[in-house]
Amino acid sequence: MLKYQQIAAEIEKYIEDNALQQGDKLPVLETLMAQFEVSKSTITKSLDLLEKKGVVFQVRGSGIFVRRHKRKGYISLLSNQGFKENLEDFNITSEVIELEVRKPTKEVALALNIELNEDVYYIKRVRYINGQTLCLEESFYNKSIITYLNKEIASESIFYYIREGLGLKVGFSDMYLHVDKLNEEEAKYLGLKKGEPKLYVETLFHLTNGQPFDFSKVTYNYEQSQFFIQTNSQFL
Amino acid sequence: MLKYQQIAAEIEKYIEDNALQQGDKLPVLETLMAQFEVSKSTITKSLDLLEKKGVVFQVRGSGIFVRRHKRKGYISLLSNQGFKENLEDFNITSEVIELEVRKPTKEVALALNIELNEDVYYIKRVRYINGQTLCLEESFYNKSIITYLNKEIASESIFYYIREGLGLKVGFSDMYLHVDKLNEEEAKYLGLKKGEPKLYVETLFHLTNGQPFDFSKVTYNYEQSQFFIQTNSQFL
Repeated sequence: MLKYQQIAAEIEKYIEDNALQQGDKLPVLETLMAQFEVSKSTITKSLDLLEKKGVVFQVRGSGIFVRRHKRKGYISLLSNQGFKENLEDFNITSEVIELEVRKPTKEVALALNIELNEDVYYIKRVRYINGQTLCLEESFYNKSIITYLNKEIASESIFYYIREGLGLKVGFSDMYLHVDKLNEEEAKYLGLKKGEPKLYVETLFHLTNGQPFDFSKVTYNYEQSQFFIQTNSQFL
Repeated sequence: MLKYQQIAAEIEKYIEDNALQQGDKLPVLETLMAQFEVSKSTITKSLDLLEKKGVVFQVRGSGIFVRRHKRKGYISLLSNQGFKENLEDFNITSEVIELEVRKPTKEVALALNIELNEDVYYIKRVRYINGQTLCLEESFYNKSIITYLNKEIASESIFYYIREGLGLKVGFSDMYLHVDKLNEEEAKYLGLKKGEPKLYVETLFHLTNGQPFDFSKVTYNYEQSQFFIQTNSQFL
C-alpha cells in the first residue's frame, strides 16, 4: 500500500470512528497535512482517491465534505465484485459446487481472449449472506494467469488470494446486467421458484495491464439483493 | 467546457472515427501534445478524464490503450442516469403523465433535505426506447433549486435543461437498486403483467456543492433493460 493510500484509509477510519455524517466538513488541507505529517501532494492524492471512492466530495473554495450513503443493508454493487472490506458488515460464506480445469467454450474464449485449446479454471459456487442464498456464481479464470486454485481458496475470497497470494494487480472490469426470470437450475440453487425475478450480472475482470483474467456469471436472489452505487460527475 | 475536457472529447472522437478496438495503443504523450497543441499537464488531465470515463486505460511504462465494451444494445447504467450522449445510439422518447408542484412526503423531504412545507416539482413519465416502454419514472425536484419546469422540458432531457438552461452543475449521485415483482400500476404503464420482474432504481442526485436536488424512482421494463457498468480499480 502506498503512502497516500494508507493516509486515505486513515481518513476513512477517522470519518467512521467519529460517525461523521453526509455534509460534515473535514479539517482544511493544512491541518490534515500536519495531522498525518505528509506533503500537500500526498494529502491531495489521498483526498482524490477518497473522492473517487465516494467517501468525500470536494467543493472548490469551500472545503472537503463527508459523503455517505444512508441506507443500511445495501451492498455496494461495484465493491462487491471484488468482494471488498465493506462486505465485512455482512456475513458472506461460499459453498463450492464444482471446481475443475476445462477447455473454454467459444463465448468464454472470446471474453478471456484465449484459444479454445487453452485451459480455464471453472468454479461454480453458491454464496450466502447472513445464512440466506445471495447468488449462484460461475466463474472462468484464465489458467495461464491464475495458475492455481483449489476448493479451500474458492470457499473464501478468490480475489484476496489473487492479490495477496499471486501478487496480481486487478485493474478494471466491464459489467453487463439485466433482469430476467429464474430458470429451473438457478431456482433450485437459490431456493426460489422457477419464473421468479433474478438479477443476472456478467463481469469481465482485467489486470492493470489490460489482460482479462476472470469472466463471471452471477445470478442473484432478488429477495436478498439490495445494491447501491455511488457515481461521480464524470458519469453524469 | 474546459480545454482538457474538449481535448478528451476529441480523443474520444478519434477513437470512434478510427474504430479503434480494445487494447489498441494510442500515440505517445509527446505525439498527442503536438497533435492537439497543448501542454503535458493538459493532455495528462484529458487522459485521466478518459480513464475515469472508461474510454482508455493507462499502463505505467507501457502506454495508453483503448478500452471498449464490446456488446451492442446495452445502456450505460451510470450515464443513463444523466441521460447522456451515448444514449443517442438509442431512440428515447418520453410521455409526461403528470407534472405538478406539490409538498413532499416525509421520505422525499428527508432525501432532498428540505422541510415538509417546501415545494417540489413532481414529474411522472413513461420513457420509451425504440418504441418499447423502457421505464416508469417518478421524480421529485427541489423547487428552490430547480425553479421552473414544464411539460415540454419534461418530455425532453430534464438534465440537459438543468445544465444548459439553469446553468447548474450536477455533481454526484447515490443509486439504490433492487429487483422485485411489478405491481399492478407499474405493469399497466410498462405493458407487462403484474408479478413479472422489474429492476427498481432510486437515485439521489446532488449538485457539485453537495445539495441534493432530484430524488427519482425508476421502474424498468426487464425486457428492454440491458445495462453495462465500467468500473476502475478503486472499486475493486
